Amino acid sequence: MEFASDNASGAAPEIMAALTEVNHGYAPSYGADPVMDRVRAQVREIFEAPEAEVYLVNNGTTANALSLATYCPPWGAVYCHEAAHVEMDECGAPEFFIGGGKLVKVPGADGKMTPDALRRIIAATPQGFVHATQRGMVTLTNTTEAGTVYPAAELAALGEVAKSCDLPVHLDGARFANALVATNANPAEMSWKAGVDILSFGGTKNGCMGVEAVVIFDPAKAWEFELRRKRGGHLFSKHRYLSAQMEAYLTDGLWLRLARAANDRAAALEQAVLAVPGARLMHPREANILFAYLPRGTHRRAMAAGAHYYLWPFDQSMDGPEDEALSARFVASWCTTEAEIDAFAKVIRNT
Amino acid sequence: MEFASDNASGAAPEIMAALTEVNHGYAPSYGADPVMDRVRAQVREIFEAPEAEVYLVNNGTTANALSLATYCPPWGAVYCHEAAHVEMDECGAPEFFIGGGKLVKVPGADGKMTPDALRRIIAATPQGFVHATQRGMVTLTNTTEAGTVYPAAELAALGEVAKSCDLPVHLDGARFANALVATNANPAEMSWKAGVDILSFGGTKNGCMGVEAVVIFDPAKAWEFELRRKRGGHLFSKHRYLSAQMEAYLTDGLWLRLARAANDRAAALEQAVLAVPGARLMHPREANILFAYLPRGTHRRAMAAGAHYYLWPFDQSMDGPEDEALSARFVASWCTTEAEIDAFAKVIRNT
Amino acid sequence: MEFASDNASGAAPEIMAALTEVNHGYAPSYGADPVMDRVRAQVREIFEAPEAEVYLVNNGTTANALSLATYCPPWGAVYCHEAAHVEMDECGAPEFFIGGGKLVKVPGADGKMTPDALRRIIAATPQGFVHATQRGMVTLTNTTEAGTVYPAAELAALGEVAKSCDLPVHLDGARFANALVATNANPAEMSWKAGVDILSFGGTKNGCMGVEAVVIFDPAKAWEFELRRKRGGHLFSKHRYLSAQMEAYLTDGLWLRLARAANDRAAALEQAVLAVPGARLMHPREANILFAYLPRGTHRRAMAAGAHYYLWPFDQSMDGPEDEALSARFVASWCTTEAEIDAFAKVIRNT
Amino acid sequence: MEFASDNASGAAPEIMAALTEVNHGYAPSYGADPVMDRVRAQVREIFEAPEAEVYLVNNGTTANALSLATYCPPWGAVYCHEAAHVEMDECGAPEFFIGGGKLVKVPGADGKMTPDALRRIIAATPQGFVHATQRGMVTLTNTTEAGTVYPAAELAALGEVAKSCDLPVHLDGARFANALVATNANPAEMSWKAGVDILSFGGTKNGCMGVEAVVIFDPAKAWEFELRRKRGGHLFSKHRYLSAQMEAYLTDGLWLRLARAANDRAAALEQAVLAVPGARLMHPREANILFAYLPRGTHRRAMAAGAHYYLWPFDQSMDGPEDEALSARFVASWCTTEAEIDAFAKVIRNT
Repeated sequence: MEFASDNASGAAPEIMAALTEVNHGYAPSYGADPVMDRVRAQVREIFEAPEAEVYLVNNGTTANALSLATYCPPWGAVYCHEAAHVEMDECGAPEFFIGGGKLVKVPGADGKMTPDALRRIIAATPQGFVHATQRGMVTLTNTTEAGTVYPAAELAALGEVAKSCDLPVHLDGARFANALVATNANPAEMSWKAGVDILSFGGTKNGCMGVEAVVIFDPAKAWEFELRRKRGGHLFSKHRYLSAQMEAYLTDGLWLRLARAANDRAAALEQAVLAVPGARLMHPREANILFAYLPRGTHRRAMAAGAHYYLWPFDQSMDGPEDEALSARFVASWCTTEAEIDAFAKVIRNT
Repeated sequence: MEFASDNASGAAPEIMAALTEVNHGYAPSYGADPVMDRVRAQVREIFEAPEAEVYLVNNGTTANALSLATYCPPWGAVYCHEAAHVEMDECGAPEFFIGGGKLVKVPGADGKMTPDALRRIIAATPQGFVHATQRGMVTLTNTTEAGTVYPAAELAALGEVAKSCDLPVHLDGARFANALVATNANPAEMSWKAGVDILSFGGTKNGCMGVEAVVIFDPAKAWEFELRRKRGGHLFSKHRYLSAQMEAYLTDGLWLRLARAANDRAAALEQAVLAVPGARLMHPREANILFAYLPRGTHRRAMAAGAHYYLWPFDQSMDGPEDEALSARFVASWCTTEAEIDAFAKVIRNT
Repeated sequence: MEFASDNASGAAPEIMAALTEVNHGYAPSYGADPVMDRVRAQVREIFEAPEAEVYLVNNGTTANALSLATYCPPWGAVYCHEAAHVEMDECGAPEFFIGGGKLVKVPGADGKMTPDALRRIIAATPQGFVHATQRGMVTLTNTTEAGTVYPAAELAALGEVAKSCDLPVHLDGARFANALVATNANPAEMSWKAGVDILSFGGTKNGCMGVEAVVIFDPAKAWEFELRRKRGGHLFSKHRYLSAQMEAYLTDGLWLRLARAANDRAAALEQAVLAVPGARLMHPREANILFAYLPRGTHRRAMAAGAHYYLWPFDQSMDGPEDEALSARFVASWCTTEAEIDAFAKVIRNT
Repeated sequence: MEFASDNASGAAPEIMAALTEVNHGYAPSYGADPVMDRVRAQVREIFEAPEAEVYLVNNGTTANALSLATYCPPWGAVYCHEAAHVEMDECGAPEFFIGGGKLVKVPGADGKMTPDALRRIIAATPQGFVHATQRGMVTLTNTTEAGTVYPAAELAALGEVAKSCDLPVHLDGARFANALVATNANPAEMSWKAGVDILSFGGTKNGCMGVEAVVIFDPAKAWEFELRRKRGGHLFSKHRYLSAQMEAYLTDGLWLRLARAANDRAAALEQAVLAVPGARLMHPREANILFAYLPRGTHRRAMAAGAHYYLWPFDQSMDGPEDEALSARFVASWCTTEAEIDAFAKVIRNT
């Protein structure tokens, strides 16, 4: 009953097998390995983007921070949702890599911006006024931090706002696969067709050991990205081990299968939770993350039974009346089993 | 006949086995995994440093840059050998992480500083003169970039110069194991007993897939290091895969065995090379790297036969007289075989 | 009828005379001039702070950014009012000098934080959670950007919140003198006695040509500040011209006289404005800045008559119905004359 | 007998008069003052550069650091003479403003680079090698730190080397006027015609109170420069006082007159010094700075008589034999009098 984070799960067997297989003999280092050539071709095909450049890094914070630094000057505002990972969970990595940037928060229910809110916040940054931070770029997240998903059309509407202001767009896709399978969109319409210039394409949370791809749709920015990656300590020497993960991940739709499994388990979690009297959703559950209110007594019972998950926000107290509703986050991953859900359902049903 | 870099070799079987083994079930992320607790204990015991803090990162550039940033203020000079990796091969990562620092080069034959040279260069930085970069810290490298090794006593003499100027000391130990087995020193005398405050302890080049430990002997700096690591994108989410590599690496002396193998193969390479008429060493060969001059004709024959290594420096030309001596770097790794050496010896003997 | 900014006014005659007087012969450069010794003594006496260190810089952005960088680590949150100059008007100078910091906005009416709001916002920064920006420091502004003033007791209450969280406090006192004369406080109770660790003490807006003092109450931070000032390009070579301004400014209470004149003129402006039917205040007028609503027709008349001031916020339109209320900012300075106020009163009275 | 620095001298009467004159009434702040419009026109005419953009800042470190940051990416090498001000005397301001850059030293006698040395050092930076700092830009200094002067043709030869490598060129002209009058060059041939893209045009050392112009010959970089200036705290609020200095400086050739006076006094100093038995030059004296060796006894006598100047380098000792030669730097400024030279000559003649 491990629902704390998709980072707590391991690597899928196919990923592990690929690592074992690539581990023989010598291979060129620093990204010149032949596996990386195949990965590049895979990504270009999947995204219908034959010119795209592809780089691998270790985690999502890195993919995000390097992407933002490549597209946003030090004096530029990065418009992000107020609950975005770049704002809340990266200890200032974007500001550090950008060289002293400013994240400007766009409010919005359920982890999502509306085009109007985005337009309004951008408009509040004066144009050509030297005393203020300038308009820099927009960063979106899909699957959002609230577990909701922008369908391609919503993403495109936000991209259009950015483009109408001549701003580049980054997409934090740490859970890109989950968003894709949730909406039956294809990768191209969920990225560059929606105006995305640079994409953090997640692997780690979805069954890899530790790898994310950065996909740059305009190759003119590629060399700068390479230098920023090296300079940030993010160019792997034995790079074949990143490549091998990503190759396996993209082969035969493994990435989509793993994401579908996680989403399905989360749907089952949702059903289990909503069966509890007094339970209700905090956000719509659209991918592999569930935010819901449960009575404190239910939480106590679940945790006592060994279920792992976080009260969300963190600062709620387990002390207090049994029937007061506390909100919590439950994450299903590629390896969450139906048995885990069933066990959990059983525990909370008996409240 | 792969002698281009120890980064071209793979992961040792024990490392791969450890990765496979740790890949089951759930584990706390971001360094809270139980394997990391064991790694911490191992490092403390090996270094006889019960208070030391230990952090894992992906590669040597990261270990170095974070270490320097933790100990050197933005306005401080980092004294390094003129051929140091931090100066030559990190695309300014130290300057970036430090926040605009300055590397000050200490000259020295065979990749090594002398205490006198270090003292002289430090003395050239005026004290308390606000117009100049201030004295910051000293960084040493062992095994050096020239393939030579500081015995513990030489390291201690350099450490003493630093301490006499109240400067902290970093040791770039990307090939720490190779230096250790080359001199039969123990880890403590090769680090904190020689005045080292923070150590980049290499694993990647010596048979790991991709992991380096940073060992901080004064725990007062540990939290700052953690924040810098996170902020640099260097905190792994599925951290157990770093821990598992390091645990296996340190278990039953694997790290020393692998380094000894590499050093032994390099010694055999040295013999093979010196058997060529006109060949001579560029630097003493003391660990797993050999710098030597060979006639251009010999290089041609070797490369034609499929031997991989770099002319060093890079800008020498393969065009020219047969018997002109060109210098080259040959690196042996944990997995270099005697057969490879023999084959290479045979190729170059026939010159 | 110049009410756009106190930066549009010139230097007071006493300041100009001091510049002329100091302009003879040679003087040690870079702050070693004897006038600076006298300035240091003046500041220490005025602030009853015999240990304080004092540095002169060119403007308020510099004083603020260097102060924040000296007290806040790159990963620290700077808690500021949502309308603070550091947030709105410095093009990211704080983030740049801090090395990638984050400003966290504290809401509050009339440009002022309440202790409760400050406490709540600080509490929302998790303690010891490596993934998030850490608690860094608090910066307050007095006179605030809304033209209101914290009395010493209110300032002390905010300082107490900061201290209870072990956070240092900066005070942006670009209009410190105006706040002081508005409340009859003394400099010590308006600064270090209220918990202020470092103060931007403004001169430029209040009759100097271009000089601000940074007062550091704990001399342990002084050398770092000096290095940051030099490194930021903010150490003047012919420093005597900064010293001379500040000396004259602090001599015989000139600074207080000038501020009192500005505040008095603003009070007269307030009366003139409130005499207009439909006019009302946007914020209480407590020092030398007035925020008020006037009918659009009145603004048209005033501007047509040559009055200079800004609609506030900027994005209001002069097109529209005559009697719609538009808000504006009016700033009086040390050199605003009663005649200017009278002329303005006459223009707007005839609406 | 003040020969320590041209920063010890004051402002010329014409500069002071201009400050007094501009000090009446209101003026738009932040560079929108009408005087600045006139300055821009003056600079464009003097440099025969009708498109050039012109910005004023407080001192030379600022002019240099902002210029380098505008033209060099964070991962770029700045090629400078080994004794350049940016390397020796700015406490890392260039590295800070660039965002972690690296200064690469070009050796050369008498403070000057040769085209060959520059070409060789640039060539040592590998092209397109992601592991190393990249080629960034070239910065030259005229008058050099050794008091020598590049004639326009020498400057152009260096500019050509830079251009042949596609590198932009900055000129540190803190003593630009002195170089100009020393060679009878005109401003255009000493700047953009020689390949200079951005110029630090000094005023402070040559009779201003504190102002330098940055001249950007390609206006495409102007807005970025403006943002960097603001963000660095270098946009003056009461900007008219910078403009007024620069306007007076450029009016009726004042800047050239002042520089000629300084150069002439330095020539007289040279004669006086060389009249001392055992004296000899350290570098050719070509502008307003003299580097020469004098017997220790002569230095003792001169200093005892109240002469101010620095032994150069600083770390020579006044203790030792009378007749040992110690090197020193003597700087003449616009206000050095013939009487001072005569008095000094008399003191040292009697050795």
